[in-house]
Amino acid sequence: MTGAVRILVTGATGFVGRNILAPLSRLGFEVHAVGRQALNAQAFNSQAKWHACDLLDASARRGLLEAVRPSHLLHLAWYAEHGKFWASPLNLEWLQASNDLVRVFAAVGGRRFVGLGTCAEYSWNRDIYDEEKSPLKPASLYGAAKASAFLTGSAFAASVGVEFAWGRIFYVFGPDEPPARIVPSLIRAHLRGSSLDCGLGTQPRDFIPVAALGEAIAALAAGQVTGPVNLGSGQTQNLRDLSARIARIAGRTGDIRFGALEDKGPGSLVPDLGRLHHEVGWRPHLDFDASLGEAIAFWKAREP
Amino acid sequence: MTGAVRILVTGATGFVGRNILAPLSRLGFEVHAVGRQALNAQAFNSQAKWHACDLLDASARRGLLEAVRPSHLLHLAWYAEHGKFWASPLNLEWLQASNDLVRVFAAVGGRRFVGLGTCAEYSWNRDIYDEEKSPLKPASLYGAAKASAFLTGSAFAASVGVEFAWGRIFYVFGPDEPPARIVPSLIRAHLRGSSLDCGLGTQPRDFIPVAALGEAIAALAAGQVTGPVNLGSGQTQNLRDLSARIARIAGRTGDIRFGALEDKGPGSLVPDLGRLHHEVGWRPHLDFDASLGEAIAFWKAREP
Repeated sequence: MTGAVRILVTGATGFVGRNILAPLSRLGFEVHAVGRQALNAQAFNSQAKWHACDLLDASARRGLLEAVRPSHLLHLAWYAEHGKFWASPLNLEWLQASNDLVRVFAAVGGRRFVGLGTCAEYSWNRDIYDEEKSPLKPASLYGAAKASAFLTGSAFAASVGVEFAWGRIFYVFGPDEPPARIVPSLIRAHLRGSSLDCGLGTQPRDFIPVAALGEAIAALAAGQVTGPVNLGSGQTQNLRDLSARIARIAGRTGDIRFGALEDKGPGSLVPDLGRLHHEVGWRPHLDFDASLGEAIAFWKAREP
Repeated sequence: MTGAVRILVTGATGFVGRNILAPLSRLGFEVHAVGRQALNAQAFNSQAKWHACDLLDASARRGLLEAVRPSHLLHLAWYAEHGKFWASPLNLEWLQASNDLVRVFAAVGGRRFVGLGTCAEYSWNRDIYDEEKSPLKPASLYGAAKASAFLTGSAFAASVGVEFAWGRIFYVFGPDEPPARIVPSLIRAHLRGSSLDCGLGTQPRDFIPVAALGEAIAALAAGQVTGPVNLGSGQTQNLRDLSARIARIAGRTGDIRFGALEDKGPGSLVPDLGRLHHEVGWRPHLDFDASLGEAIAFWKAREP
C-alpha cells in the first residue's frame, strides 16, 4: 500500500467485522471502527479508534466521513438478524445508506471502497459460482439489495474514479457466532446430546472460519483488485460431514435428524476462488479441525 | 380487470408517459397522472386527473399515495436528460424514490405495481435478449440503478403480496421526442439536407413507435403478468435501413456519415418478445412507415 492508508470499518462490532480489525492493523492500516456504540481501542485485539454512529442516519454518516476522511472504506454494516434478514424491509434502507456512503466517501476524497456481498446474489442453479459467469439473480430481498448495492455502487464509483471491490461471503463459522445459525446449532446439539432437525445435509458447501475470512477481507481491502471477489476456504464439505467432524472433535454426539426439514438453498453452493487466489493473492493457512475446535470450546465454556 | 382500478401514473408528462394515458383510459382505468406541474384533464387526449408532485421528496410522494390510494401504480418517472442520464448520480436518487414508492404503495393497499426498465440492464453480449436467460449485467449507472429497482422492488413486492411487473424498453421514437435523440436527429438532418455523424449503423435494433409502446405498457398494467417483460415492435432493422426509410418518406436526403463516430452499444440489441406476445397477449398493429411519417411531419412543422 502507498500513501495515507486510513481505513474506516463499518459493522466493526459484528460477527465478521470484529475479526477484521487486527488483520487490518497488521497490514499497516490506521484503523477507524464504527459501531452503534463506540468501544475502547483494545476491543477485539485491535488498535482501532472507535466511533459511535447510526449509519442509517444520513447526517450522522456524513458527519462521520467528514471527520475521519478515510482513504479506504470497508463497509460491512447491514441488517443481519438471524432468520429475519432475508425479507426485512431494512434491506432497502441499508441499500440506500450504502449508496450514500459511496457518494459521501468519494466527495471527501476517498480512494478505495470495499463492500461485503453474499452468495445469495447469484442465481442458485449452478455447482460452482464464478464472479464473471454466474448471473446475478437473487431469490430473496436480502440478496436483491446486496446485488443492487454492488451494481449501483460499482457503477457510481467508476463514474467518479473511486476503486470499488465487493467480497462475496458464502458460509462462515467461528467463536461467538449468533447461536441460532447452523454451525453453533450443530455444536450445541452435540455438546448437549440433544436433537436438532436439519435439511438433507448432503449439498456441498464452502465453510470458512471467521478468523480466516477476516484475513481474506483485509487482504482484499489492502490490494487493488476491483469488482466482485468470492470469499471462501476452498474446502468443500456438506453438513453431514461437518456434523460428524464436530462430534468427533467434541467427543460427544447429539441426535442430528438430517432430512427432518425441507432443504433451503441450492443443491450446490461452492465458490470459484480463482480471483481470490490469483488476483488478490490470498489463500488461507487452515487447520480446519483446530478452527472447529475453537468454536466448540467457545460453546463448551457457555453450555451447562 | 376486476375490482376498483384506479391507476396512478408517474412521469406522465414524459415522452413515453404522455402516450400511455389515453390507452389506460380506454382499458377502463380511472387514471391519475403525476407531473411536477399538474396539467388540465384533457392534456394528451386523456381524461386523467392531474396531480403535481416532486417524487424525489419523500413526504410529498407519501402524501400523494395516501390521497389517491391507487390499486395500480405505473411508475415511469426517472431522470432522463439526453446524454446525461447514463452516469448521473440522480440515478441513485430515483432508485431510492422508486423503492420507497413500492413500500408506500403497498402500505396504502396497492395491488399491482408496474415499473419501467431498460435493455441497458442486460449484459450486452447477446444477439437476442430474453428476460429469463439473459443475465443482468449493466454497463452504466443508469442500467445498474434500473436493474436494482427491478431486483429490490420485485423482491420487496413479493414479500408483501403485491404484484410487480417490469417492462424493459429498447428503442422508441415518435412525435415530440427530445430532439438530440437518434431518430429526431436523423429526421432533422434529412429534412434540412444537413450532415450528421453516426456510428457504423449496421447493428440490428428493435424500434417501436411511442404510440404502440404506450399501448403495450397499458396492456402490461391491465394484465396479471409479473416479472420482467421486454417491450418492442418485433421489427428488426439497423440505423442505415431506418435512415433510408426516413429519407424516402420525407422525400429529402441529408448527409448521414455512418462510421464517423465510434459505435456505442452492443453489436445486436433485439428483444425476445415471447412474454409480451404470449403472456401479456399484446402485439402491435403497426404501419411502421405511417408512424415514421408522423414523426417526420412533427419536425417538418417545426423546421424552417
